[in-house]
Amino acid sequence: MEGFNLDLSDQPESLEQILVDCRDTLKYGVRTGHPRFFNQLSTGLDIVGLAGEWLTSTANTNMFTYEIAPVFVLMEQLTLKKMREIIGWPNGEGDGIFSPGGAISNMYSVMIARYKFFPEVKTKGMTAAPRLVLFTSEHSHYSIKKASAALGFGTENLILLKTDERGRVIPADLEAKIIEVKQKGYVPMFVNATAGTTVYGAFDPINEIADICEKYNIWLHVDAAWGGGLLMSRRHKHKLSGVERANSVTWNPHKMMGVPLQCSAVLVRERGLLQGCNSMCAGYLFQPDKQYDVTYDTGDKAIQCGRHVDIFKFWLMWKAKGTVGFEQHIDKCLDLSAYLYDKIKSREGFEMVFNAEPQHTNVCFWYIPPSLRGMPDGKERRERLHKVAPKIKALMMESGTTMVGYQPQGDKVNFFRMVISNAAATRSDIDFLIEEIERLGLEL
Amino acid sequence: MEGFNLDLSDQPESLEQILVDCRDTLKYGVRTGHPRFFNQLSTGLDIVGLAGEWLTSTANTNMFTYEIAPVFVLMEQLTLKKMREIIGWPNGEGDGIFSPGGAISNMYSVMIARYKFFPEVKTKGMTAAPRLVLFTSEHSHYSIKKASAALGFGTENLILLKTDERGRVIPADLEAKIIEVKQKGYVPMFVNATAGTTVYGAFDPINEIADICEKYNIWLHVDAAWGGGLLMSRRHKHKLSGVERANSVTWNPHKMMGVPLQCSAVLVRERGLLQGCNSMCAGYLFQPDKQYDVTYDTGDKAIQCGRHVDIFKFWLMWKAKGTVGFEQHIDKCLDLSAYLYDKIKSREGFEMVFNAEPQHTNVCFWYIPPSLRGMPDGKERRERLHKVAPKIKALMMESGTTMVGYQPQGDKVNFFRMVISNAAATRSDIDFLIEEIERLGLEL
Repeated sequence: MEGFNLDLSDQPESLEQILVDCRDTLKYGVRTGHPRFFNQLSTGLDIVGLAGEWLTSTANTNMFTYEIAPVFVLMEQLTLKKMREIIGWPNGEGDGIFSPGGAISNMYSVMIARYKFFPEVKTKGMTAAPRLVLFTSEHSHYSIKKASAALGFGTENLILLKTDERGRVIPADLEAKIIEVKQKGYVPMFVNATAGTTVYGAFDPINEIADICEKYNIWLHVDAAWGGGLLMSRRHKHKLSGVERANSVTWNPHKMMGVPLQCSAVLVRERGLLQGCNSMCAGYLFQPDKQYDVTYDTGDKAIQCGRHVDIFKFWLMWKAKGTVGFEQHIDKCLDLSAYLYDKIKSREGFEMVFNAEPQHTNVCFWYIPPSLRGMPDGKERRERLHKVAPKIKALMMESGTTMVGYQPQGDKVNFFRMVISNAAATRSDIDFLIEEIERLGLEL
Repeated sequence: MEGFNLDLSDQPESLEQILVDCRDTLKYGVRTGHPRFFNQLSTGLDIVGLAGEWLTSTANTNMFTYEIAPVFVLMEQLTLKKMREIIGWPNGEGDGIFSPGGAISNMYSVMIARYKFFPEVKTKGMTAAPRLVLFTSEHSHYSIKKASAALGFGTENLILLKTDERGRVIPADLEAKIIEVKQKGYVPMFVNATAGTTVYGAFDPINEIADICEKYNIWLHVDAAWGGGLLMSRRHKHKLSGVERANSVTWNPHKMMGVPLQCSAVLVRERGLLQGCNSMCAGYLFQPDKQYDVTYDTGDKAIQCGRHVDIFKFWLMWKAKGTVGFEQHIDKCLDLSAYLYDKIKSREGFEMVFNAEPQHTNVCFWYIPPSLRGMPDGKERRERLHKVAPKIKALMMESGTTMVGYQPQGDKVNFFRMVISNAAATRSDIDFLIEEIERLGLEL
């Protein structure tokens, strides 16, 4: 804030100053497109995607009606259908919408499930339904919890499922908890299975979970925000085996597929629910007496009114790469994470959070500085190790060389979580990361 | 769909074809930036805003943490503070966030109000609260109704308030309905006052509504999505008099201020509520042991996880225009609507929906074709008049000359709603619109 005057004033600034402001904004920003930026699930900068976003902002229109976004509305329909085909729903039938991110897509899934089982909640509110219970893994994304709070279920009615060492839901725990809830007289309504958890990159066993959901008549949502991209890869799509049995799926092309932010879709197997759940038939926007087929006016399916055009950049990238291009990108990123895993699993000073070939590009590990290497496991070592990753991260940010995330998880102290989604990343960037962690952590 | 191959295929297309696709996308699109596009509240194309959006997509980052969007996070803080100052909250104190549109901003306001009065709903769900009632005008935006459905209140617990001829809430009706609700044992919790309704452009009398809200301890939200821009104008800001008494305000710079889509803010007078309402403290994103002041990590206030950078284009426009530049833009658009009103209020073949100087840029009118002019008011005339605006609109779209919206409202048959928010619009565009309606409607 010292080197950059951010203040807004009454009088306009000169064009020269505006250009300086733009340069400064980029100068002080973080280079999320850099091949050594590993901090988030969304990284990289696809040049066709960028061109698509530029054209989108030039067109500056709104997805709510066909009449003002005819091309984009058709592209959205067609792309959603293609995504449903890839999920495996017959003829790509079903429904869906692009939303402003995975959290909102997941929120949609909970809303739609509630509408399917208790449509009267739309008019009468949550008190018209029995006590409803949702299930998700303790490793799942916090957006399921946000949705349970926002939509009026209450976070106490979201039950967290136990996972195995690699972060995958234990189906028997789901069934036991469903039975427990039913015995209390509550209604188990919604199960979220994660395809690619945020930290471990774990894939919940969808088929086994689907068996249980079918048995107890529960909505199955698959949060594939992070893992959905693997459906594009013949080598890796088996990790989402059973996804076609889901009632709804979240899939964020802006993560593993490298589409510029924001680009997230929620896909729904049963047609009509999205519309039924959200429509309010505003007369000023969705006039029934238009001169075209008004089923193209998709806006009333949304919880939004105005809706940004997120489809074009994705559609254009798909055109430019083809399905095979996305497949190559996914395969390459997963190869890189396997390379990282192989390199550090037995390297001195590195300790894996769990020892298994990564399912996704997530690789979770501790760096153990020399000063801690001989120390027996115990309170002191844990407390000191907890401080290592934050310290290395701080040094990374100060030196500006690379960025990677860390976090604790359950009873595990702070560890690094590497993720790779950038098409520009190479083995030498992985090598660099390892050496940089060693360099910065040596004296800790 | 005939002239444009939208299909996605396995193999990549050539760069030449990608360029053709881009050209076709623009060719078949609707020119929302054209000065004769009057169809929506968001029109125009500001060149600095466009540059801002291009830089934003190049930076391709995410608002959730300071560490990956340091500049944009600071810009957002500072701009929100400036907006709160303009609203009139002491020292610009309070809180706020940019959201993906006015509907979501309004949804935030309902969530925050509920958290203020019944924080236990976050954990226990709606059944932990008494029956809660929301109020909004029959002319208000449908997003309030969407929020009441989504958040578990139920649309039946949203009570619509009567309005006067110009679409403004009648405060006495609000008080009567509050008393009625209380007598039933329900809890009146939330009142939405609209500053600039979607169709009439009406401004509810905020001060009188605020008196009632204070008397009964009810949250007052002002939906100034459309009208908020008038706060930038010394001549017009009196129309939002009392807005400083609101507990929360929605204000969309992407409407009246010409910022490219999406750019919407929800502003909250009391600090801490947004965080309290939405925070889930995800360890992988909001680590408390970062090397910087983590209060800059604003992501946990949001119902989103990833959040698009909507601030930069707005901040850059503000820098380039200054507050006075926005003021001139607002004043000019309102002058144009007064010009339109003066021109058609007594013109043969035009009939105003209500006869009064427009409060905002909305001008609502019927075009009466010669064949209907002598006809007495009655069922037949109403039925025929109802079909006039859709028919003219269809002809407009076919000839591609201009676009303006229409809708029915209450017992009023389809009428045109003109709105002006495009800086490029001039008096000659208004003249053209009138003549074009006359030309296309002459034979109806």
